[in-house]
Order: sequence, then structure tokens, then C-alpha cells
Amino acid sequence: MEEEKRETQNQPAEEDDQIVNPWEVAAKDGGKIDYDKLIDKFGCQRLDQKLIDRVHRLTGRPPHVFLRRGVFFAHRDFNEILDAYEKGKKFYLYTGRGPSSEALHLGHLVPFMFTKYLQDVFRVPLVIQLTDDEKCMWKNLTVEESQRLARENAKDIIACGFDITRTFIFSDFDYVGGAFYKNMVKVAKCVTLNKVQGIFGFSGEDHIGKISFPPVQAVPSFPSSFPHLFSGKDDLRCLIPCAIDQDPYFRMTRDAAPRIGYHKPSLIESTFFPALQGETGKMSASDPNSAIYVTDSAKVIKSKINKYAFSGGQDSVEKHRQLGANLEVDISVKYLNFFLEDDAELEHIKKEYAAGRMLTGEVKGRLGSVLSEIVERHRAARASVTDEVVDAFMAARPLPNMFD
Amino acid sequence: MEEEKRETQNQPAEEDDQIVNPWEVAAKDGGKIDYDKLIDKFGCQRLDQKLIDRVHRLTGRPPHVFLRRGVFFAHRDFNEILDAYEKGKKFYLYTGRGPSSEALHLGHLVPFMFTKYLQDVFRVPLVIQLTDDEKCMWKNLTVEESQRLARENAKDIIACGFDITRTFIFSDFDYVGGAFYKNMVKVAKCVTLNKVQGIFGFSGEDHIGKISFPPVQAVPSFPSSFPHLFSGKDDLRCLIPCAIDQDPYFRMTRDAAPRIGYHKPSLIESTFFPALQGETGKMSASDPNSAIYVTDSAKVIKSKINKYAFSGGQDSVEKHRQLGANLEVDISVKYLNFFLEDDAELEHIKKEYAAGRMLTGEVKGRLGSVLSEIVERHRAARASVTDEVVDAFMAARPLPNMFD
Repeated sequence: MEEEKRETQNQPAEEDDQIVNPWEVAAKDGGKIDYDKLIDKFGCQRLDQKLIDRVHRLTGRPPHVFLRRGVFFAHRDFNEILDAYEKGKKFYLYTGRGPSSEALHLGHLVPFMFTKYLQDVFRVPLVIQLTDDEKCMWKNLTVEESQRLARENAKDIIACGFDITRTFIFSDFDYVGGAFYKNMVKVAKCVTLNKVQGIFGFSGEDHIGKISFPPVQAVPSFPSSFPHLFSGKDDLRCLIPCAIDQDPYFRMTRDAAPRIGYHKPSLIESTFFPALQGETGKMSASDPNSAIYVTDSAKVIKSKINKYAFSGGQDSVEKHRQLGANLEVDISVKYLNFFLEDDAELEHIKKEYAAGRMLTGEVKGRLGSVLSEIVERHRAARASVTDEVVDAFMAARPLPNMFD
Repeated sequence: MEEEKRETQNQPAEEDDQIVNPWEVAAKDGGKIDYDKLIDKFGCQRLDQKLIDRVHRLTGRPPHVFLRRGVFFAHRDFNEILDAYEKGKKFYLYTGRGPSSEALHLGHLVPFMFTKYLQDVFRVPLVIQLTDDEKCMWKNLTVEESQRLARENAKDIIACGFDITRTFIFSDFDYVGGAFYKNMVKVAKCVTLNKVQGIFGFSGEDHIGKISFPPVQAVPSFPSSFPHLFSGKDDLRCLIPCAIDQDPYFRMTRDAAPRIGYHKPSLIESTFFPALQGETGKMSASDPNSAIYVTDSAKVIKSKINKYAFSGGQDSVEKHRQLGANLEVDISVKYLNFFLEDDAELEHIKKEYAAGRMLTGEVKGRLGSVLSEIVERHRAARASVTDEVVDAFMAARPLPNMFD
């Protein structure tokens, strides 16, 4: 009940000391995002060790590094998904991407890597929404360019290793209509203009496409939006892995859900992947030097890290040996926290680096090799994703073995 | 250019002395709608005798009674449609209905009777939009009920005699998607929230479904919304016959059209069909005694006319013989103006009635027989419209002979 109240509470972004919404992430005075405050403000729940242990127990598999290291740190009713799962009731996963750029960076991969893990360990179906309509409207791309980017991005997403027998990828321009559109109308009827302006900060100068869009992102949360997958399964629950900037959409969705006879979707939410220049928000797609792209060569990766990765080390080797590195601001350590799987090695690096026994250059070197390996693996996987494979993932088809 | 400016001009409804929008028609102080003022306010053009003569000449057929008698009295760029037609370039017709009630009344038939005439004399294709999504949102009907009403209304529309080889009827819940949805997004990008609030008077308490809807009614104006009909014919012009309360939608549409590379649709616009109780606006669907329904029996029609049709006659026979009837307020005369085809007989009735030589009862008697015949003809036609016929009209199919 407490949570219900919070979900309906709309605080205009400008009154807050940090701004987090689907289009803008900015900490106060260029500082770090305060995720504890965000949990309080949004009214979601902290993903605690007990819940992580429960995932471990229920899946019989070690929790993903993103769970162990607090990358996915918040949730809404994830426990209810696990309660139902424990009783033998499966669910489905829903995630998505707004296809605004040709090449993805590592931060874009985070939700997909995690979603793949969830699909693998729970053995559940997954729908992936490519919001080409959104990007056409917000980035002022043509319909054709948005659709082209959606297909390009789909290749990167597929390269993350999703199981084609359990995965349906769709573009809004292709798929909006029928049952999906009916649910859009049902959701739209539940949301006043005042409310959507409170949640998303839309103004009178914004075009009505923006105001029309939130129901489009809302309705994949309801199984009836996918008759070819979930016909007769209206009771199926939905779990949405996403970065926490998407929470406003799903607060709105969760408000509407019971009023139109549906389950509220559950969420599992991540922090933002920091820019090379420092942890002050999400990375900027407009600055290619702020991120490692999946198209970067090993040489470029090494050079970007050496040149741009903000260091918590000291100005001189002498001072560094004496004082050690400030891990709180060191981007290389933060990136290793996401991508170096070996817990013991990570602990070792952090300890040695903090004590001044390891230098920034050494940490950056290790990061370079970790990221190059990931990017190289991704590149190889993406190269095998043909147009036919994309078509197969994007065909609106039944998935008869999706729960097996 | 003058007209362009007017199209973009948004005057909030509350500042005007009469309110005319798709959901409300109200004259000042319960008086009559001032159609001249409406033409000025909306910035459309008067449909003058020259244009009617031109239709006569171009089609080789006598102009429809609704043209001859000023029922369709205003237009936007209808002359351009005729210019193109004269050069051998065809166009398509677009009209629609919001399916909010089970049975249609005579006022509902007016645009369809006229559209059938246009289809017949110009031999052009026609798309008919059933806005079940709109009614689901405005009348708070369920999706299912809106769809049921759409099909029921489709039967009445088909009963008006449309040519199945040139007519596509669609419901939004069925048809929104694909090329249609892409055009919706393109239009939505051209319309700010401020603008849509100015045009339609939406407030912060209105739900976002209402704000999302105008592009849905806009896009059938563009041939590319119907790839199965008009693929490769992006240059085809569109003519929209409708009551003038729909003008706000198409002012918005005409503003957006050139910005997204489409022709502005042309319009031909009618007055409102008056209520039995008097000409103070549109009929009210909530008062069954304010209108003659296509389901009314001859007996009910006779009784409704006798009981409710506002009379311009005098209080006593003596006074009537002396002063005659006031035709300006007499509903029976107004209805005969719509539905009595014989110009000479109508003139005779008006002359005799105005002079006091004919009594209200006689005029009402003649009206009863005219309307009973129309309704009986409609009932017979509708009885032959099976579900299979509805399916055939509503199938998204090519119409290879639509221009023949």
C-alpha cells in the first residue's frame, strides 16, 4: 500500500537535486548519482543480499556478476516473481532498446547481458521492444532511418546470445496494432495529461507524439499484447530488467495495470554504466570518446582507456605509492566491477590499487584486455547474425517450447 | 496564404459565442448555429453556386439535393479536387463514423448518403473509418463493445448502397498499425500539445488517449496509409465529406500535411441535422425522442413527428390562416429540405405553408410519409447486409477496379 502511494506520486524533475528520466540523467552539481535517494524518490525497493541468495537457491546457479556487485540494485515486486516461480509458475521477461545509434556501447549491453542470464537460469520467454517510433519522434529521425537502426541494433542484441526458441524481438513500427494497440488505448485511458506531465516533465511545446508514446512502452508488460505468444495466458507475470531511468514508464504502467485487469509488471533495475570521463550520469551518445563501442578495435579500446578513463590514482608515482588510489572515482575499477568475472582477481586489484602497490597503468592494462576480449567475442557473434537470423527473431510466431 | 494562416489559428472554445467541435455543438443562448460565422472562424470557404454548377457540368448529373439546398455549404480546396478531376486525375473519398450507439438516426445518414452520391458520380474509391478506439476512450466503452458497435454501424453504412468494388471500411482497433501507424507518428511530430489543446480544448484532467487520437483521424487523409489500395499512388488527392464539427481534425491535418510531404486533404462540409425539438445544434444521442432512428417503425416516426417536431405554425388555425408559418424555425420544413427530393413540391409546400394555406398537420403528414419511405428502404437494405458482407467490405484487400 505504501508503495502504491509512491507510484502515483509525481514529482516534477526540476524540483529535485538530481534528474533521472528516460531522456536525461544528471546528478547535482555534476557529482555522482545518489542511488539511495533515487530508490526513495521513485519508491522502488533495494535488491538485498537475501533476495540474491534466493535467486541462487531457486536457480541452482551462481548469481550473475551484475547481481553480486550491485549493478542491478533495485526492484519492484521481484520477490513476487520468485514466490510464483517457487510454486512452479513461470513468467516472461520484457526489455527493450531505443535504436538511436548505429553502434552500441558497453553500457547498452548491460541490460541485455543480464536479461540473457535471467532467460538462461529461469528458462523463460523474452520479448524485446525496439522503440523505433520513440527515436523517430525524439531524435527527429525519419521512419526509414529509425527502422534501419532498429534492425542494426537487433543484430547486436541477438549477438548477446539469446535463445531463438524463447525470444521475440519486435519493432514498434512493425508490431503496433491489433491486441497491442487495444492495450495502448486501455492504458492511455488511465493516464491523465497532468499525470504524464508530472512523470515525464512534458511541456506544452512538446509534440503530441511524445505524450502518446508512454502507453507504447507500457503494454509489452501485459501478456495479452502478444497473442501469438501468450494467448489464453493473461495471468502470466512479467519481469522487466532495465536501467533505473526507465522506472517512470513502469510506475505509470503499474498504476494502470490493476485498473484494466492486469498484473503489475515486476522490475529489476540497474545503475548507469559510467562514462570514461567519470561517473556523473549515463554516457553520452554524442561523444564517441565517452564510451567503448562494440565496434572499437583492441587498439582503440586501449587508447581510449589510457587517454580518457578517469583515474583515482595520485599525480605522481611517489604520492601514489604513499596514498594509494581513490577507488570511489576510478573508472577502470568501476568498469572491472562490471566486466571482470573473477571475484578474487577483482578483490586483489582493488586491494593492491587502493594500497598504492598497483599503478593506474597496470589497472588500465588489465581493463583493456578484459574489454577487448568482450568486444572481440561480441564482434564474432554479431558477424554470424545474418538478415535471415534477424527476420527469424522478429517474426511474430508462436514459441511452443518457450517454457521448457 | 490567407487560408494557411487561419488554419494554424487556435481559438479556445470558451471565448466564442458558439461552440462547435467534434464533441460539442452549442449555439449562443440556445439559439441557432451561425454558419457564416463558423466559416469565418474556421477559415473554410463557402460552397457557392458556381462550384455546384461546376460539379453538375463535370459529372453530367444533377447535383445532389444536399448540394442544391445548402446542406453541404462549406469546403476547403474542393475546387482543387475539381481542377485535377477536370484534367483526368481522380481522387479518393474519406469519411467516417464514431460508433457510439446501436442504431443510427437520420442525421447520421446525411454524410453517408452524400458520400455515396460522390462515389457514384465521380466513380472513385472510398475509405470509411470507424473510430471504435475514439468511442472506447470518450464514451468509456469497453474495447469489445466499441468493436461490436462498429460492426453494427458498418451494416447501416453499407445499407446506404456503397459500391463494394470501390469501398474499404475499417475499424481503428483492427487496422491501426504498419503504414497507418507510421503516418500517425509523422503527424504527431507536427502537432504540439499547446496546439492540440487550442484546437480541441483538452485540459490537464483529460486522459492522454484523447490527446493521442487526433493523428488517428488525420492519417486516412493520406493515401500511403492504405498500402493495399494506394501503393505507389502517394500523389492521389483526398476529399473528405463530413459535418463541419469535424473541421478541427482536418485543420490540424492540413497544417501537418505539407510538412510531411503529403497533399492537404480537401473537405466538403455540411450543416448539422437539427433535432426534432428545434435547430439549436446537433441531435443528442442520449434523448431518443430528439431524432428519427433508422430502426423506428412508421407508426413511431409519425408519432414522433406529431409530438416533437417543432412547428413554425401559429397557435390557432385562425391565426395560422392569417399569419402563416415561420419557416425559419419549422422543423418539418427543415427535414423536408433534407429529404424531399422533388424541388417543385418542396417549393409548393413552403409557399402554401408560409401563406397559411397549409397547416402544420398537413406538412407533418407529408414528412411522415417521406421519412417512413426512407427508413423502410434503409431497413430492407440493412436486412440484406450479412456478416459475410461486412467482412467483405472490411477486408484489407486491393480494389483493382476502383477508378473504372
